[in-house]
Amino acid sequence: MTEFFTLVSPTQALQTLIDQLNGALKSETISSIEALNRILAASITSPSNLPAFPRSTMDGYAVRAKDTYGATPNIPAYLSVVDEIQMGTVPSFKLEPAQAALIHTGGMLPENADAVIMIENTQTSRNDEIEIFKVVSVGENILKIGEDVTKGSEVIASGSNLRPQDIGALMALGITSVDVTVSPIVGLISTGNEVVHPDSTINPGQVRDINSYSLSALVQSAGGIPKRYGIIKDDLTSVQEAAKIALSECDILVIAAGSSVSARDITSDVINNLGKPGILLHGIAVKPGKPTILAVANNKPIFGLPGNPVSAMVVARLLLVPTINFLNGANTRTTSSIITAVLTRNISSIAGREDHVPVLIKTVEGKTLAEPVFGKSNLIFTLVRSTGSVIVPINSNGLVQGSLVDVHLY
Amino acid sequence: MTEFFTLVSPTQALQTLIDQLNGALKSETISSIEALNRILAASITSPSNLPAFPRSTMDGYAVRAKDTYGATPNIPAYLSVVDEIQMGTVPSFKLEPAQAALIHTGGMLPENADAVIMIENTQTSRNDEIEIFKVVSVGENILKIGEDVTKGSEVIASGSNLRPQDIGALMALGITSVDVTVSPIVGLISTGNEVVHPDSTINPGQVRDINSYSLSALVQSAGGIPKRYGIIKDDLTSVQEAAKIALSECDILVIAAGSSVSARDITSDVINNLGKPGILLHGIAVKPGKPTILAVANNKPIFGLPGNPVSAMVVARLLLVPTINFLNGANTRTTSSIITAVLTRNISSIAGREDHVPVLIKTVEGKTLAEPVFGKSNLIFTLVRSTGSVIVPINSNGLVQGSLVDVHLY
Repeated sequence: MTEFFTLVSPTQALQTLIDQLNGALKSETISSIEALNRILAASITSPSNLPAFPRSTMDGYAVRAKDTYGATPNIPAYLSVVDEIQMGTVPSFKLEPAQAALIHTGGMLPENADAVIMIENTQTSRNDEIEIFKVVSVGENILKIGEDVTKGSEVIASGSNLRPQDIGALMALGITSVDVTVSPIVGLISTGNEVVHPDSTINPGQVRDINSYSLSALVQSAGGIPKRYGIIKDDLTSVQEAAKIALSECDILVIAAGSSVSARDITSDVINNLGKPGILLHGIAVKPGKPTILAVANNKPIFGLPGNPVSAMVVARLLLVPTINFLNGANTRTTSSIITAVLTRNISSIAGREDHVPVLIKTVEGKTLAEPVFGKSNLIFTLVRSTGSVIVPINSNGLVQGSLVDVHLY
Repeated sequence: MTEFFTLVSPTQALQTLIDQLNGALKSETISSIEALNRILAASITSPSNLPAFPRSTMDGYAVRAKDTYGATPNIPAYLSVVDEIQMGTVPSFKLEPAQAALIHTGGMLPENADAVIMIENTQTSRNDEIEIFKVVSVGENILKIGEDVTKGSEVIASGSNLRPQDIGALMALGITSVDVTVSPIVGLISTGNEVVHPDSTINPGQVRDINSYSLSALVQSAGGIPKRYGIIKDDLTSVQEAAKIALSECDILVIAAGSSVSARDITSDVINNLGKPGILLHGIAVKPGKPTILAVANNKPIFGLPGNPVSAMVVARLLLVPTINFLNGANTRTTSSIITAVLTRNISSIAGREDHVPVLIKTVEGKTLAEPVFGKSNLIFTLVRSTGSVIVPINSNGLVQGSLVDVHLY
């Protein structure tokens, strides 16, 4: 397998591609409610303090802390209760010395109050008077103005992927619309004279199109918009025409070549005809996925993926997903989750290539195990039977049974 | 904090709720293309062998393995090339002894061929004859019929969450529509006289509705369908009426109570009036999130969540998301990703409650660190500034700086 030594690693390949691109696509303004999993195009600065007024974090009495000094269960402090503060309203009074006001969690403190004593530490002694059994210090049981965020501070950075809590936080500040990046449209072409539509009855020699659909779903998961151009027969003119249209309509073009030599050669010729600078790399030191083509034309990235559906998925996760993230302006390039597990068998590899081995995660007696899923690297169901993949690094000859490995979940 | 000792753990609370429910909702048939992240309602059995015919995994020549026996670079075997097998077609001939046929990756083997020799290990010696420099054994470089899946075998289990590779694999088998569970509709009601719509200019004493939106987005991420019923004022009749309508229209009802005592009391009364068996639990040993109500009426789960937006999110991730998964028929109850990190500071807790502490994940000199995010537990931006949470177990007094902790990403 010495041919791998002349090839670049997946990391280098990605960098070579990214270096040719201009950065994130343009942005659009959408309702914050619709912004889940979208990428912020500009940092959000808080237009106001949150909270905007001092609030109680407890049910109890708003007090002046110094009026409680020295209070114990044996020698309580006595305060007169002047009012109950209604939720959502501004107290219409100031606290004078030795006064308290009934307040609920989230209620607004009256002027001069600087602490709240929990209801559990008080007792009503007679009408409009309470006994206080515990000292509270200034600021106790209250949220100060701006304690969550201060006006003018950056609260969510440009490039952030908006999560449920981020959407809620935007609403807290009254930010009901946001600028997010436009999601890249990813054009998908399958080629191969042996490839037929999944709805078709297949004749011997034919196979159904897998790549258009697995890649479509992966693009969707990664925050891109898939656009399928169907299955194109292996002739230069047909593939060239489809590729030209797809490139003009999309931000990224993916051609999953048929598995024959001629289909691969056609893909290479087609990509080279699409524009400058053209093909950047042909072949990557990864297994499965070696015969990958990376190119750029009209500032748009182009991927020539192997027809083998497993290779296509491995390379798409490794290079296409980070490229989608890059065009999305996301401040993290990969989104995959990693868990640590104990490898149940040796995995052998060959130095000079990065191996991606599907594994099934199992929990046995509280231990998380990663069990390699066997099968040739072009069997799509090896990906179905697995929970993630283990990467054997490019300069390693393999991984040893019993060692701790990172499993990239998919 | 001894009050926590009388309360059940989050795990027990979830079990108490699940025990009252009937299981997954009904199913519906949808196009496989639309089925990403949906849950399979019935196991998928393969209608055919995959591959359906013996295929080459290499570019080379289809041969009878025994015709290559003894071949070396010095003493090659000679075979006559009878034809080239076109992609997608059935070879129209059988291989006779000492014959070979040119074949491409993915091509169908002719009758009598039982191996493929890679093109690199051959050389054309003269017209229609090749020299073979290497022995191939029976089955080498071919995919046998059914090597990926055999006809009639279960290929994807009921309750599986469909991933991109699963969609592709369904297409490989010609399964273009699937039965998936109907996603539960989750009704969301916010209450509180202090709570106003996010679009509103707020007056002192008022706060904008966070919970309707953060919970809505969380429900969406978890595979439910959120349905917002808006902000209802704190009076029994209004909340009761809204809750009754929402329960009739949804599969799960969530009331995020205003933070005042009266709002919480109203929630409790409203839930108790909705039907049998009613409230199962009032209060859970978790911080934040203690004043949670769990109930069931008309076989539908009902959650009374604290108004504090952080508590509401913690409890929703802990109990609402697994309940959505349960009604979805998902065979895993939690979907959160966990990474292991080194804790950068001590976290103190109190035995008897489970603490959920927000942390920010940082990578410093190749080490993954979990840095606790400080701030009172009702500040929504503590969730924005954090990457996940660390759980201090119910019987622990805290976690020590430098220890390895599991971070539940959100």
